[in-house]
Amino acid sequence: MLSAYMQLAVQQALRGGPATYQNPQVGAVLVKDHRVISQGYHHQFGGDHAEVDCLKRVSPAEVRCATLYVTLEPCSHFGKTPPCCRRVATAGVKRVVIGQLDPHPIVAGRGRDYLKAHGVAVRVLDPSIAIEDLNRHYNWFYRHQRPWITLKTAQTLDGKINAVNGERSLISGSASYADSQRLRAQFHAILIGERTLVTDDPQLTVRLQALRYPPVRLVLLNTSTVAVNKRVTKADGVATWLLCRRPADTDAPLDQRPNVHVVVGDWTPATVAAFCQRHGWQSLLVEGGSHVQAHFVQAGLVEEWCSYLSPQLFGGGSLPAVHDDQLKSAPVQFDRPTVRVSGQDIRLQAYRTGVL
Amino acid sequence: MLSAYMQLAVQQALRGGPATYQNPQVGAVLVKDHRVISQGYHHQFGGDHAEVDCLKRVSPAEVRCATLYVTLEPCSHFGKTPPCCRRVATAGVKRVVIGQLDPHPIVAGRGRDYLKAHGVAVRVLDPSIAIEDLNRHYNWFYRHQRPWITLKTAQTLDGKINAVNGERSLISGSASYADSQRLRAQFHAILIGERTLVTDDPQLTVRLQALRYPPVRLVLLNTSTVAVNKRVTKADGVATWLLCRRPADTDAPLDQRPNVHVVVGDWTPATVAAFCQRHGWQSLLVEGGSHVQAHFVQAGLVEEWCSYLSPQLFGGGSLPAVHDDQLKSAPVQFDRPTVRVSGQDIRLQAYRTGVL
Repeated sequence: MLSAYMQLAVQQALRGGPATYQNPQVGAVLVKDHRVISQGYHHQFGGDHAEVDCLKRVSPAEVRCATLYVTLEPCSHFGKTPPCCRRVATAGVKRVVIGQLDPHPIVAGRGRDYLKAHGVAVRVLDPSIAIEDLNRHYNWFYRHQRPWITLKTAQTLDGKINAVNGERSLISGSASYADSQRLRAQFHAILIGERTLVTDDPQLTVRLQALRYPPVRLVLLNTSTVAVNKRVTKADGVATWLLCRRPADTDAPLDQRPNVHVVVGDWTPATVAAFCQRHGWQSLLVEGGSHVQAHFVQAGLVEEWCSYLSPQLFGGGSLPAVHDDQLKSAPVQFDRPTVRVSGQDIRLQAYRTGVL
Repeated sequence: MLSAYMQLAVQQALRGGPATYQNPQVGAVLVKDHRVISQGYHHQFGGDHAEVDCLKRVSPAEVRCATLYVTLEPCSHFGKTPPCCRRVATAGVKRVVIGQLDPHPIVAGRGRDYLKAHGVAVRVLDPSIAIEDLNRHYNWFYRHQRPWITLKTAQTLDGKINAVNGERSLISGSASYADSQRLRAQFHAILIGERTLVTDDPQLTVRLQALRYPPVRLVLLNTSTVAVNKRVTKADGVATWLLCRRPADTDAPLDQRPNVHVVVGDWTPATVAAFCQRHGWQSLLVEGGSHVQAHFVQAGLVEEWCSYLSPQLFGGGSLPAVHDDQLKSAPVQFDRPTVRVSGQDIRLQAYRTGVL
């Protein structure tokens, strides 16, 4: 159980939200004589770190001998500005309680060590869900050198995603639509396959909230040709990467469109993950279709499952959410799902056993 | 909202449970001067009706001018014993509050009419879930002249029932196993198809509680030959009906086994339902496999869906819970599912929209 001060720091951190983008969400609380004298958080990617945001709100005299509660280890590298650990030590903070060490290789304990070496008492808390949840994708990305991957489906009670193969079926209700938009906002990249592009022609954007860093769109294709008239290649201000297995005449003209990039390569779940890693995209939401989902399951590249279950049966020969005739997979095990009512639908969310 | 007296009668009715078999669950409460002076219920198939059970516990003098709350319309036909409606009127009950009219064609309002004609004040309540739930299968059976049909599956998050086609996969945990035994106990008949018989060789019995009237086992087969060495044809005291599409040499020897019946015919969901109706089996639990489930979905013969979702993904080419390459179905719509945690699994239960 976190102390009340650290819980307050968590609440501060959460105010950052998706605006922190590739930076973690971090909150800080300054306590002196059992009284909270300042609070702060990392507002947005490129902005002040939480410690700075917190310290700048009080006078130097007040800071002296105070205790700083911060959800993540203060940073330690000297870039354009001096690192937070020096700022904290110089300000005269007597004691720092750290929610978790920063898994980013540029920090990774160096912030803690700097503080100790400069006479600040440091305590690092044991792992906790509340702290871990603040930056699940960030933590995973730096601990495992690959993006956190979530499979998302909208399916019927019998696990189907469309009534007639090759035609778009409206599955979930409006509450699930809104919820899946909130889900998208938490990811750096969204992936679909060619059949989903052709059948659904989705926008793959977050339309219910304004995002400074909307998730990029990745589309797995045989060639770029099918994307020429699709909505994801329109100039809507969101980047789209067409990941093609073979070159085509349409590659160059598409690549010249604003926001569109064409990359020809040997695309598998593993190479897609490596591609995300190189771009610093810490999280990937795989939205289908069934073959793409099956390939990620088979590759063992699934950290999380999220499905919206619509109370209907499609039966017969309709398309399962995860399916590929050619693939046999070892089962992937999850912890007990979290269940939520979503209008007429049921939302199931589960973490792969062992990832938490 | 039911009155407290009628709620008490519902509680009485529930004490009957599966022992009432083809009879409805019925409870009765006798009230005089704002005081409950007797309670009773239908204990078991062939036993006293609830009204008799209630009236016999008080002296004739006490009954006079009392009000009887009974969950189901008193019966009206003269068989081996006089009907309950006469017993109630003769006893001098002044007023009868009836939870619902009996849909059985042998009663169907005649009990109410008899009471009125004999000077008893009668009130029939508006339909309510609590009363309807007491005898959902019974009510459906007599209102629609066919059994209530529930599809049950144990499936993965991606809607699969086995990892490798043709091999048995253990899907749900022990809590779901126990729960599915309780589910079976509520049905008059359980159905599986040939592939499930061959792959799983299930017992299809209720092993966690002693039942006076265990559900009969129905198996859809091409010929009876595959059933010769299967557990459902062993002499375990539970009836098994082998519903075969073609005759075979094994028919006669199997039919001579205790409890086993072989019936050759043109078996479809509709003819199976009619077969249940002729036998008075008011409810049918279809446990699979995927083709049998798909045929019932396509035939529109599904009142209820119940699935145990195990938190795993089988992915790839594994078998969906409801599937048949040849079948295209119109979607079947359900009300929002009821969700329950079942060990590590999630249990989803839903009624087809319109059946309640």
